[in-house]
Amino acid sequence: MESVRTQVVIIGAGPAGLLLGHLLHREGIDNIVLERRSNEYVLQRVRAGVIEWGIANFLEEAGVGQRMRAEGLVHHGIEMRFDGVSHRIALSDLYDGRAITVYGQQEVVKDLINVRRSYDAPLHFDSEVTGIEGLNSAHPTVTVTAPEGEMTISADFVVGCDGSHGVSVESVPRGYMRRFERVYPFSWLGILAEAPPATEELIYTRHSRGFALYSMRSPTLSRLYLGVRPDETLDAWPDERIWEELTVRMATDHTAEIGQGPIIERGITPMRSIVVAPMRYGRLLLAGDAAHIVPPTGAKGMNLAVADVRLLAPALVARIRGGDESLLNSYSDDSLRRVWRAEEFSTYMTQMLHPHPTDDFENGVQMARLRQVVESEPAARALARNYVNLSSV
Amino acid sequence: MESVRTQVVIIGAGPAGLLLGHLLHREGIDNIVLERRSNEYVLQRVRAGVIEWGIANFLEEAGVGQRMRAEGLVHHGIEMRFDGVSHRIALSDLYDGRAITVYGQQEVVKDLINVRRSYDAPLHFDSEVTGIEGLNSAHPTVTVTAPEGEMTISADFVVGCDGSHGVSVESVPRGYMRRFERVYPFSWLGILAEAPPATEELIYTRHSRGFALYSMRSPTLSRLYLGVRPDETLDAWPDERIWEELTVRMATDHTAEIGQGPIIERGITPMRSIVVAPMRYGRLLLAGDAAHIVPPTGAKGMNLAVADVRLLAPALVARIRGGDESLLNSYSDDSLRRVWRAEEFSTYMTQMLHPHPTDDFENGVQMARLRQVVESEPAARALARNYVNLSSV
Repeated sequence: MESVRTQVVIIGAGPAGLLLGHLLHREGIDNIVLERRSNEYVLQRVRAGVIEWGIANFLEEAGVGQRMRAEGLVHHGIEMRFDGVSHRIALSDLYDGRAITVYGQQEVVKDLINVRRSYDAPLHFDSEVTGIEGLNSAHPTVTVTAPEGEMTISADFVVGCDGSHGVSVESVPRGYMRRFERVYPFSWLGILAEAPPATEELIYTRHSRGFALYSMRSPTLSRLYLGVRPDETLDAWPDERIWEELTVRMATDHTAEIGQGPIIERGITPMRSIVVAPMRYGRLLLAGDAAHIVPPTGAKGMNLAVADVRLLAPALVARIRGGDESLLNSYSDDSLRRVWRAEEFSTYMTQMLHPHPTDDFENGVQMARLRQVVESEPAARALARNYVNLSSV
Repeated sequence: MESVRTQVVIIGAGPAGLLLGHLLHREGIDNIVLERRSNEYVLQRVRAGVIEWGIANFLEEAGVGQRMRAEGLVHHGIEMRFDGVSHRIALSDLYDGRAITVYGQQEVVKDLINVRRSYDAPLHFDSEVTGIEGLNSAHPTVTVTAPEGEMTISADFVVGCDGSHGVSVESVPRGYMRRFERVYPFSWLGILAEAPPATEELIYTRHSRGFALYSMRSPTLSRLYLGVRPDETLDAWPDERIWEELTVRMATDHTAEIGQGPIIERGITPMRSIVVAPMRYGRLLLAGDAAHIVPPTGAKGMNLAVADVRLLAPALVARIRGGDESLLNSYSDDSLRRVWRAEEFSTYMTQMLHPHPTDDFENGVQMARLRQVVESEPAARALARNYVNLSSV
């Protein structure tokens, strides 16, 4: 068995893990990134696509924003559609000219992998962590089953960026971390279609038959979602039914039909909220989805992951380089304040746009909330701030 | 049996019924107000105490605001207290200088009774409506059991201002009106105490042990509330325990103890939301609590009642005087838009300030919502608008 020594082991090559590895590398901190899945899988995994204003700036400062700036779509507003009428929320007008950037999470991942390849830092795909030991000692060890065989890595710190079902959280003694959870009574059926987006901005739609979202990943790729019951499966949704349902839900008196094209990716994702606290156990730190899941309605998943890492990288650097642990000690509390803010906003958006299957009082409240957003400037301004820049304030 | 003829029969002598009677009288429309309870009971019934900016102006325009202006307490802010720290929401600074007026509902009722006595319009206490007939005919009739005997009143219109358990809604065929309802897992224990208020502004408090609210009715009367479990009874709350619990929940590092004094009124009120739609059936119109109940956290109950009547009075005048029914036809829809807005705000306030007994994800969201209100200006501004003037926009 190969034995390796590094300063930080990072489990998971999503945006959180890869960005952390990059930020540490820039500060001269050795690190190894381990990913259970293959390189191809990670590059094709379709996820979030909205990058906040401050998060986009941070990616640029981190030296990984060049392609995002060149190819990402800058949006200055979103549409809210209900009762067959579209209302534009002028995000930039409402918030000091700030805008969001539409750029797929897998593109961020690709950029991060490319930069890591450029300086040849260790990045192991198809590598499954089978054990994490000594998290309360000075040198925890991580055991990995990789294509080349077993490997034991000794490190100063282990960072879990391996999602909500990852091995990192599992390695913490039961009861040490609390888990806060909410399950929503809907899922999202998402498709990626080779169709030029029919509109320039995202359209969030509340229809009595359910939620719908029109978004895009590029000038040739549309990304569309339908709110469906949690027990539904893809079998029941042939292409024709998907387009028909999207058309019905998003119909207005004066919009053209939505653009259609070959569906190249599809999936059903349950909607839930999870917060794990604290985000640290001894020498283990959690970042991104390993510590928190938000329903996608608020478009906060990737932004929270980057925001975690923006705090965590300098905290690790200060500790490893100078022995100063103060930032590391406040990492969990500081991150969780932002996480709860994001959960609040994501819940608010979800509970405004998804008709409840049985609770018609809730539905009346949802309609009132939507009307307030399009009629009252303070309400629109609050939404704009949270949508455009929640993770950086 | 005495037989009487009038233009409008108003059932219920709360703020909605009495104000409607007054507004109709000013326009020369004959009306009779019937109240099941005694004059004394109605005058002593302690209810809401916050009057919105636009509603206070309307009461003044209606000629019943003189004492409210002289004796009411004008407040330019409220406090939000949590984690042992008080945060002031500067309502007037956040909303064009507009303020609320603290003036008890029973004082409004007293002013309305006095003005009605001054022009000697019919107002019958201890008079129970036992039948409402012919709501789809041109002349519905109302049968009343009064101290003087039975009475039958024939009218052009009947207006139900008799609360959520009143006979008006009961007289509508089952299934015609929909009833939207939410029950919250807490009640309010409210006391009226002969104690000078210890603070100048209302204090909304979220404590892990539950909600608390410090308010006042006058410079010598304090009105305090505790959030309690829905199954609690007054037996379990002797004076001493009430004051102790209030002191614990409202404690901060640097505030004096709350002022105490003899408790002259106490009660436990369940928290719930009800919306009845439509607010009309033939010749019957509903206004105030007969059509909608809001949890008291948003201080909207009396304001909604006045706002209903502000729409309904001119609608009845136009119909009775000129035969124009258009305002009457839009009364329900126009009122319900405001009612749902108030339900949304009241739910928002309730679900920000009342720790949930079992759902700790909800509690995390509540804390994030509270922090946003005291840290983010758009969120504070949205709250200020809704608190100060929701019923007039």
